[in-house]
Amino acid sequence: MDKIAASNKVKLSMVLVGGLCSLLLYHLKKKINFSHFFLSKKWFSEFSLMWPGQAFSLEIKKILHETKSKYQNILVFESTTFGNVLVLDGVIQLTERDEFAYHEMMAHIPMNVSKEAKKILVVGGGDGGVIRELCKYKHVDSIDICEIDEMVIDVSKKYFKEVSKGFDDKRVNVFIEDASKFLENITNTYDVIIVDSSDPIGPAESLFNQTFYEKVFNALKPNGCCVSQVILYIS
Amino acid sequence: MDKIAASNKVKLSMVLVGGLCSLLLYHLKKKINFSHFFLSKKWFSEFSLMWPGQAFSLEIKKILHETKSKYQNILVFESTTFGNVLVLDGVIQLTERDEFAYHEMMAHIPMNVSKEAKKILVVGGGDGGVIRELCKYKHVDSIDICEIDEMVIDVSKKYFKEVSKGFDDKRVNVFIEDASKFLENITNTYDVIIVDSSDPIGPAESLFNQTFYEKVFNALKPNGCCVSQVILYIS
Repeated sequence: MDKIAASNKVKLSMVLVGGLCSLLLYHLKKKINFSHFFLSKKWFSEFSLMWPGQAFSLEIKKILHETKSKYQNILVFESTTFGNVLVLDGVIQLTERDEFAYHEMMAHIPMNVSKEAKKILVVGGGDGGVIRELCKYKHVDSIDICEIDEMVIDVSKKYFKEVSKGFDDKRVNVFIEDASKFLENITNTYDVIIVDSSDPIGPAESLFNQTFYEKVFNALKPNGCCVSQVILYIS
Repeated sequence: MDKIAASNKVKLSMVLVGGLCSLLLYHLKKKINFSHFFLSKKWFSEFSLMWPGQAFSLEIKKILHETKSKYQNILVFESTTFGNVLVLDGVIQLTERDEFAYHEMMAHIPMNVSKEAKKILVVGGGDGGVIRELCKYKHVDSIDICEIDEMVIDVSKKYFKEVSKGFDDKRVNVFIEDASKFLENITNTYDVIIVDSSDPIGPAESLFNQTFYEKVFNALKPNGCCVSQVILYIS
């Protein structure tokens, strides 16, 4: 994907994010009854204004960790059939059973588009899953990760050892910072940028606007490539 | 896809179905606590031994239909955000909002493999969604549908008018019968067979074994093509 394609991708992202914001505003205006609650003590249910009227639930074996960082609520529980589960502000981020499907897609598609990528940036991705996949490429020189919430990294290292093992790789450099600020004065630097953010409500909010993607665009080398996590609504 | 490829597909199906049966037997042996229940009166939750430890829920606006046919429980409700929802034996079959994603994939992929297909069989698919897509091809001469439960067709015609509208097409011939029996003596007849069944617990049980796929194989013309709904577990 070259810069023109990347630019189109940015435009697409803007449309999707714009649609999402409109949807949220619409529902907020309607003052829909919103409740985040457990289906029962034995089940965790994921309710959000981002997907009104639906919920996904997992059966809890044991709550392992529950805390509030500077930015968000962090919950880790052991489920009966999906392994350990990471939840940020009530939204499931990953389960040990199926995280590979997301992390492999996020990492290997751009790495197969930019086959000679040497310098990579991961925005967000504090669980380390994308980094783990990137570390499989021997030709990569450095992997910078810019995660706003250090506690996500700490929790992942403790409860998701297989996911976070990439942090041990010497090529990985961790920056605890808002990625929008981090990218302020970076130009022509990265071959690949992977935006592995959470959703647009919460600490990742600054990553869902045009200004941020202009910075991403500037931080890429001429033939650079960017992928990002964008919610798509079927309406 | 030619017959050899189709044969490989059959083998793959067998492996998947075999794995599924083992999984079910394992959990039945363990006598896992299984309960099908509503999250609350305002929510429908989909619990099944086929996916233990997880549940998907939709908010109910209004129950439209609840009955027991000769073969299964049939529930139709209007949801708050997914339109009308069809549930058979506690398992969501389709929602008005996203049914297109499944029905388009089931119909248009085989129709683009067998570009000259004239004679088509749909196994199951009583809601009519696959038929609706098939009717878009003017070069198709006839579409046979073999559905075991006539009540599914009746309910779909009443509550899912956009999904079931293909039944009005003159090329569509409805057979109310167990597809395994229907195919008993049919050979070298169909260009495309689409197995749009429900899951292997319930009335579609006879469609999840090697004997059935041998009949499908025999019913296909030499360059015939078959697709089927098969559950895939990430384990």
